[in-house]
Amino acid sequence: MLEDKNPQKTKLEQLGEFGLIKHLTKDFALQQKSTIKGIGDDAAVLDFKDNKAVVSTDLLIEGVHFDLSYMPLKHLGYKAVMVNLSDIYAMNATATQITVSIAVSNRFPLEAIEEFYSGVALAAEIYKVDLVGGDTTTSTKGMLISITAIGEAKDEELAYRNGAKPNDLLVVTGDLGAAYCGLQVLEREKEVFKVNPNSQPDLSEYTYVVERQLKPEARRDIKELLKSLEVQPTSMIDISDGLSSEILHLCEESQVGCNLYEDKIPLDPTVIAACEEFNIDSTLVALSGGEDYELLFTIDQKDFLKIKGNPNLTVIGHMTDKNEGAHLVARNNSKIPITAQGWNSFS
Amino acid sequence: MLEDKNPQKTKLEQLGEFGLIKHLTKDFALQQKSTIKGIGDDAAVLDFKDNKAVVSTDLLIEGVHFDLSYMPLKHLGYKAVMVNLSDIYAMNATATQITVSIAVSNRFPLEAIEEFYSGVALAAEIYKVDLVGGDTTTSTKGMLISITAIGEAKDEELAYRNGAKPNDLLVVTGDLGAAYCGLQVLEREKEVFKVNPNSQPDLSEYTYVVERQLKPEARRDIKELLKSLEVQPTSMIDISDGLSSEILHLCEESQVGCNLYEDKIPLDPTVIAACEEFNIDSTLVALSGGEDYELLFTIDQKDFLKIKGNPNLTVIGHMTDKNEGAHLVARNNSKIPITAQGWNSFS
Repeated sequence: MLEDKNPQKTKLEQLGEFGLIKHLTKDFALQQKSTIKGIGDDAAVLDFKDNKAVVSTDLLIEGVHFDLSYMPLKHLGYKAVMVNLSDIYAMNATATQITVSIAVSNRFPLEAIEEFYSGVALAAEIYKVDLVGGDTTTSTKGMLISITAIGEAKDEELAYRNGAKPNDLLVVTGDLGAAYCGLQVLEREKEVFKVNPNSQPDLSEYTYVVERQLKPEARRDIKELLKSLEVQPTSMIDISDGLSSEILHLCEESQVGCNLYEDKIPLDPTVIAACEEFNIDSTLVALSGGEDYELLFTIDQKDFLKIKGNPNLTVIGHMTDKNEGAHLVARNNSKIPITAQGWNSFS
Repeated sequence: MLEDKNPQKTKLEQLGEFGLIKHLTKDFALQQKSTIKGIGDDAAVLDFKDNKAVVSTDLLIEGVHFDLSYMPLKHLGYKAVMVNLSDIYAMNATATQITVSIAVSNRFPLEAIEEFYSGVALAAEIYKVDLVGGDTTTSTKGMLISITAIGEAKDEELAYRNGAKPNDLLVVTGDLGAAYCGLQVLEREKEVFKVNPNSQPDLSEYTYVVERQLKPEARRDIKELLKSLEVQPTSMIDISDGLSSEILHLCEESQVGCNLYEDKIPLDPTVIAACEEFNIDSTLVALSGGEDYELLFTIDQKDFLKIKGNPNLTVIGHMTDKNEGAHLVARNNSKIPITAQGWNSFS
């Protein structure tokens, strides 16, 4: 689908670099008051007045972070934005601007890049962030994406990784493990397709998990939700590499320990069903699967009643003194040390 | 030199992704008052108070933007930062923070990445910018660098591309064409090396042009210089793609024309000598060579006496009505239309 076999597809050299940027970004409206100048100068100009600015950046490589054989380009554009916005939301901040740079080899026609940017545009529109800069260039192999997200927050709203205290409650948004299950389904279908290219997969029972993999949503809603509940998180991080890895980050940065209760980890029924089908442990998937883009945060115990029963939030444990270490309290009440099994891109 | 043939070199998988970021960034001191939180959380936190924030980003690909066969990694780290700071300075702003992301294939040992980061560190120290974020990951081929630079300026200091008026003077900093000449020298040495790997090149007479290619300096000094001269540029852009391309950008964005005088274009004597040796036209090199990272700006005619005679600044032309077009006024007084010959990465 991506190979440039169709003579009607537009080759990138027809547009040139400047023409390409102009072409791709002409329909991006600016929505943020803080955006004074977007694309079209040496740099974007932003105005945060009394708020603090927050900045996060990610580099995504074809064959390492995404596989175009099952990732439609529009979804990829959307997801690449989500990955970055999630980092901004994990500061308890509001995302306001993004820059998007891509490099593509000459096997990509203009139409493929347009598909990618249509996903970026959709994400920018839904999440109300302005595209204010970027770069397009050739790569010698495959596709590369670099996104920087910028956001803002009042000083007292910001939630760092180092603010958790012993006895704080550990809270997670949404449910975990679905993105990893979706990946397993897609990998299996890819293998089936290799053997029998005419097979028509029926993925209807996997809709939720596949969507969590291909079109994740970042938790833009949580900052507002916590504000309305009058809860200020004491620490916060996003779950991109799996729950265990993120808990260890919070523990290390905050110099605390943690008890995580296995029976409290929120799992969607379709995740449990998929784990049974693939014969993998659902707790392990939640702990190490990654790509959930949910938020993990801690709150003072006094705020428990404010969040109790909220369908978006689950208390899954509590922080302890540092010397108690970080443990999973299993269903049989045994305590298992949590180890970093987060994604290691060099292994 | 980069191949991991030496068993004493450290493989990246020994450190893992988080270990690698920590290891590479531990010696970066924070120097900017506006940096509240640097590396180590989901996002950096910046505080610009009453100033406007400016943001610029670039993606650099091995084999497209740089060639490691003659570009030492430390120089590459330094230059990659310069490329981005130059965009910030071209807004007449002060650069304050950078994020640096790299992807490398497994042929790079840790020591190679450290070399790269030592160049980033040197640039950060000299140019007083804080490294506040980034990403390290694997690539399937070669090395990729993505840098985002952030800066600040008062509203009234900012210089956009669209502020030039007819009769404004066109001014350039430093001299042009040297980086391109340096590239020609390095390319020639590479060819010689292929034929005779034992040859020891004597590049002493090319020191200036080679240094302009391998270790360019961005014009951090110009904002302060113009302020001290009490000159506010009406428009500004950096010369990354060559003078002709940048003049056309200013003309298009400002809706003006331009007369550029060939005999005013500042050329270093070593550039003229190198152009004679390589049998290339020095004006063409200045117009289209690129990578000079000088600043091109316009000023009101009334400010002419304030900048006259300053060794950093050369008046090379003036803006005209849009319908007069953009022309090079040659030494023989003939007028030649300026065409975009700036770098087209897709050609």
